[in-house]
Amino acid sequence: MIKVGVVGYGVIGQRLADGVVLQEDMELVGVAGNSRPTLAIRALKEKGMPYDLYLASFENKKDFDELDIPVSGTLEDLVQKVDIILDATSAGVGQQNKELYEKYNKKAIFQGGEKNSVADIFFHGYANYEAGVGQDYLKLTSCNTTGLIRAVDCIDKEVGVDRVAITIVRRVADPGDYHRGLTNALKVDKAPSHQAVDLMTIMPHIEATGILVHTPVTHGHIITVLATPKKEISKEELLEMFNKHPRIRVVKISDGFQGNAALFRYARDLGNPRGDMYEIAVFEETIVKSGKDIMFAINIPQEAVVIPESIDAVRAAMNMQSDKLDAVGKTNEYLGLGKWM
Amino acid sequence: MIKVGVVGYGVIGQRLADGVVLQEDMELVGVAGNSRPTLAIRALKEKGMPYDLYLASFENKKDFDELDIPVSGTLEDLVQKVDIILDATSAGVGQQNKELYEKYNKKAIFQGGEKNSVADIFFHGYANYEAGVGQDYLKLTSCNTTGLIRAVDCIDKEVGVDRVAITIVRRVADPGDYHRGLTNALKVDKAPSHQAVDLMTIMPHIEATGILVHTPVTHGHIITVLATPKKEISKEELLEMFNKHPRIRVVKISDGFQGNAALFRYARDLGNPRGDMYEIAVFEETIVKSGKDIMFAINIPQEAVVIPESIDAVRAAMNMQSDKLDAVGKTNEYLGLGKWM
Amino acid sequence: MIKVGVVGYGVIGQRLADGVVLQEDMELVGVAGNSRPTLAIRALKEKGMPYDLYLASFENKKDFDELDIPVSGTLEDLVQKVDIILDATSAGVGQQNKELYEKYNKKAIFQGGEKNSVADIFFHGYANYEAGVGQDYLKLTSCNTTGLIRAVDCIDKEVGVDRVAITIVRRVADPGDYHRGLTNALKVDKAPSHQAVDLMTIMPHIEATGILVHTPVTHGHIITVLATPKKEISKEELLEMFNKHPRIRVVKISDGFQGNAALFRYARDLGNPRGDMYEIAVFEETIVKSGKDIMFAINIPQEAVVIPESIDAVRAAMNMQSDKLDAVGKTNEYLGLGKWM
Amino acid sequence: MIKVGVVGYGVIGQRLADGVVLQEDMELVGVAGNSRPTLAIRALKEKGMPYDLYLASFENKKDFDELDIPVSGTLEDLVQKVDIILDATSAGVGQQNKELYEKYNKKAIFQGGEKNSVADIFFHGYANYEAGVGQDYLKLTSCNTTGLIRAVDCIDKEVGVDRVAITIVRRVADPGDYHRGLTNALKVDKAPSHQAVDLMTIMPHIEATGILVHTPVTHGHIITVLATPKKEISKEELLEMFNKHPRIRVVKISDGFQGNAALFRYARDLGNPRGDMYEIAVFEETIVKSGKDIMFAINIPQEAVVIPESIDAVRAAMNMQSDKLDAVGKTNEYLGLGKWM
Repeated sequence: MIKVGVVGYGVIGQRLADGVVLQEDMELVGVAGNSRPTLAIRALKEKGMPYDLYLASFENKKDFDELDIPVSGTLEDLVQKVDIILDATSAGVGQQNKELYEKYNKKAIFQGGEKNSVADIFFHGYANYEAGVGQDYLKLTSCNTTGLIRAVDCIDKEVGVDRVAITIVRRVADPGDYHRGLTNALKVDKAPSHQAVDLMTIMPHIEATGILVHTPVTHGHIITVLATPKKEISKEELLEMFNKHPRIRVVKISDGFQGNAALFRYARDLGNPRGDMYEIAVFEETIVKSGKDIMFAINIPQEAVVIPESIDAVRAAMNMQSDKLDAVGKTNEYLGLGKWM
Repeated sequence: MIKVGVVGYGVIGQRLADGVVLQEDMELVGVAGNSRPTLAIRALKEKGMPYDLYLASFENKKDFDELDIPVSGTLEDLVQKVDIILDATSAGVGQQNKELYEKYNKKAIFQGGEKNSVADIFFHGYANYEAGVGQDYLKLTSCNTTGLIRAVDCIDKEVGVDRVAITIVRRVADPGDYHRGLTNALKVDKAPSHQAVDLMTIMPHIEATGILVHTPVTHGHIITVLATPKKEISKEELLEMFNKHPRIRVVKISDGFQGNAALFRYARDLGNPRGDMYEIAVFEETIVKSGKDIMFAINIPQEAVVIPESIDAVRAAMNMQSDKLDAVGKTNEYLGLGKWM
Repeated sequence: MIKVGVVGYGVIGQRLADGVVLQEDMELVGVAGNSRPTLAIRALKEKGMPYDLYLASFENKKDFDELDIPVSGTLEDLVQKVDIILDATSAGVGQQNKELYEKYNKKAIFQGGEKNSVADIFFHGYANYEAGVGQDYLKLTSCNTTGLIRAVDCIDKEVGVDRVAITIVRRVADPGDYHRGLTNALKVDKAPSHQAVDLMTIMPHIEATGILVHTPVTHGHIITVLATPKKEISKEELLEMFNKHPRIRVVKISDGFQGNAALFRYARDLGNPRGDMYEIAVFEETIVKSGKDIMFAINIPQEAVVIPESIDAVRAAMNMQSDKLDAVGKTNEYLGLGKWM
Repeated sequence: MIKVGVVGYGVIGQRLADGVVLQEDMELVGVAGNSRPTLAIRALKEKGMPYDLYLASFENKKDFDELDIPVSGTLEDLVQKVDIILDATSAGVGQQNKELYEKYNKKAIFQGGEKNSVADIFFHGYANYEAGVGQDYLKLTSCNTTGLIRAVDCIDKEVGVDRVAITIVRRVADPGDYHRGLTNALKVDKAPSHQAVDLMTIMPHIEATGILVHTPVTHGHIITVLATPKKEISKEELLEMFNKHPRIRVVKISDGFQGNAALFRYARDLGNPRGDMYEIAVFEETIVKSGKDIMFAINIPQEAVVIPESIDAVRAAMNMQSDKLDAVGKTNEYLGLGKWM
């Protein structure tokens, strides 16, 4: 039983904690919030404290006392009790926390917002699991890159991929965000997008480029992918590849899956906690060939998509499974991925 | 054990079905969808058919067969098996369905979209429960009116209310809607808003008026209420009234509840199915006095807010409880309302 | 010929400069931008420099030289050449600039973002023109308050107003803003809204309160006003009052004026520069009575609404007209207000 | 002097009329609205009827009389007075109107919403001007295709283009639209997008494909283009090509042109009527190479982008200029295109 601590209790941290609890070979020791009783922590309290709560600092501990929110200790206390940390703090904080993890000789998995230098290896469960096995510090790819690599790696493993050009149509805020947003505007970023660059870091044999456009929505990113496979494939062959992948869900526009918001509604209607979806979706009717190239659109549920690969990272770092398929298979089983197949 | 059928399996129908399942003194016999395998029905299938599915017509039954979705019969079959119907079909369809309910001598509860003439009584669990007891056909108030009346009735029961003026800042579409929407525009409607008129129908001793503004959001309506109580009350007294009401949640902007989207996120983080919230919220810092009048803003979670009062309506129509407090108390208990108090 | 300088060349500053140019008894000496070649300044250049440009600082003057944008001097140079300054800088900067205005003994008009203490008088052209006559430092009301007071003062002058309760449904960003925004969320503020408080400062005989809700749109605010006139008035009488006011445009939903976006489109189709509209609009079908009270909804075009009253302020401070009706009449004539009547 | 009539007076029709007025070798005989006094027609009236107005039918002529809007005759009257019609009616109506144009032997230019079969030639001013010379019925490409072809043709004319893959991030409604919209959702369409297909019809030597994503904004589309030129070109060479094109404006994100909304604001600040922009924009920092391919993002101002090519079409059909460069040069001169260069 691997003892895991989750540090940072925001959008990602909450979902990491929930995901770890589902792993039968892991134990969630606790989560560490920052020093204020955020809505996420108030919800934890209202649910009856299914996890123990630790705090980055005790500076405002009296605020927690006033709200009768039990606090089990400091972040430093938590670090000492675990085998490995899943750090989901805001960008830059993970780097600072690393000192503490090193002090107690604990392994840690960082999220995509941290600089690559925080970790020994830039990790993706399906694309380079082996490289993470036994490492001390792993950094996950960001939500878009994680989902994108799932799709590209799925093709690459079957027929090889030479080149990828992407357009990312991304959400600007998560549901409930009031500190950031965009109103009636599209915003373009300097190219190439970091997701294309990151894909090349993880999959160096692929030439990738891309452009990112921010859009005023909250429910998921849509990425169009133009891929040049080493061996020409038909639309049907591509569908077959995607349909076999437990973290990819092929959906049809004609069934009602018209975009990111339909997928979010579907996940809510499925009864998934928080209306989350771990899988990326491929919109079947968007698959189209152009010469040897094949183009398609995928949906990235930004709040939850990185959870499976983050848990894969724990498996790799702790060497719980040395074989990739064993590892991702365990993660998938415990998260219920692929059950619809 | 009262046997209930839910007719219509869209945004409201799904939630009615879930709500009925939680009532220990009711049995959900099944839900009746229309004739196509919508995303809601596909989700029901993927969840393993926790409810039996009936169809308004067998016209496209082969579509269901192809998808291996078990169908238990027609709407007419369902009607015969139940004591009472919760009809949540699109506006106008309920009126048509009523013939079938009458044919089999079954009681029915209609949603706010139907014309008042469909029912014997225009119903609200807290405001006029007694009027619905033993009636055959009840019509619920719409989402905004249901939530609004909760707040106004709460004051009215304590000190009396003479007058209400409201401004409804409403969402134009539900999350996942692709058939309607508004982009970068506010839209005003002819006054008075139907919600003010409906309030006067349910609570005829109150003079009410109001204006409605549509806004391009999906997560909930915000209503500002200016109320003239019969007896002057302080902000603290108002808070005390609201705090005692199991279907009203007082929240603070300063805690992070900055608006409808924060409440939706909170409900998701609570683990509520679909991220739903049955309660209206009152934003504490918006309560302000002006002479004898008192003004405040409430949040109406449009997808789920009518569920409790719909279940109250079953209790009234079937005379499960003749006393209002007994009835709403049962509904609240089974739905888990007021647990945070 | 009164010599006017406009300081700050953003959304408001540009429009103030355009408005001053139209006044036949004023001369626009120039505008002062901050130290960077913003898009507004690039547009000024592309239009052929209809105004002289001054800069708050010469720190980045080489950036202007590289773009061949002629610079006529510093802010301090501009101040010396004018009789009065219209300061439309970001909140807080006006207070700093005031030192410079005082140094050269120049009068100045500040926008609503500054603190009241920056000025001798908190000013509205129609509501308290006389109070501004001959004063050195005037502060305008904010966009919402300016428009709101127009409507309330219009009634007050005819029959007196005792009380006002407002709900402001406001835009969160201007068209083209990328530094602020809100996505799929309504946000409520602590009550009472500053607009209600400000109205009481300008019109102390009125009791006012209100709540403000932010919405994700860019084209204008909608305010619902519940007014208690001293003498009961009919809807027709109210319409007659509004129809006589050159800065209020009565529009009908049934003609297609469904909200703020329809008004913006109309102003563009009129050929108004920038698609601007100086007038507030009253939506005729929203006027509704409730007892003695009367309720209605108005539209506030936030980018341009304060221009007329700002020019009135120049007239007052410079004592160009001692009589209010003479003053606002000149402003209206030169801005083309009331031409549609 | 070529006599032109504009049929349809919506978003496109108004702008066609304005554009024709600017052509010194064309005379705008009048515009034909449909049978209701729309906001566009009310604005025409308020502006003092700069154009004569005709009506598709006199069915509701009394509505115009009541508003004192002068009507110069019917659509059939207008057709008889002109040499050529610019038809900007809703999709499908142009096909019906064609009977009338044929009856009087008048040439006509249709917009992109009509079926290709309505016309003899599918036309783009820069890409296939010659094919339209002397033809009776021309159909324009849609807004996205018009702008896209400008950019692709610009490269094609210099070095040849073999292949294009596009992602269209499109607005779902025009500013002021209340009859359509999307709220907090991205929507994907079946691929390939019609714009890719249309590009191949106009430029049959190019292999094109693409995916379209609808986004909830109103101000312009952004298209990412991955082009495979016949001869490899550098970013600098591409910029040089675009910079020479009078209908393409190269802008920099670092200057503040962060997306479609910044361009709209800039056009408003330029004083362009309606805040319109005829040019597409290329975001300089998005240009990126990938092997031999080159990728970039362009902005399509959907309301006005087709005006220049529509006027080119008049020139072609009437054989006002047989040479393309002469023709587009005249259009550009009269519309003021390229003045910033």
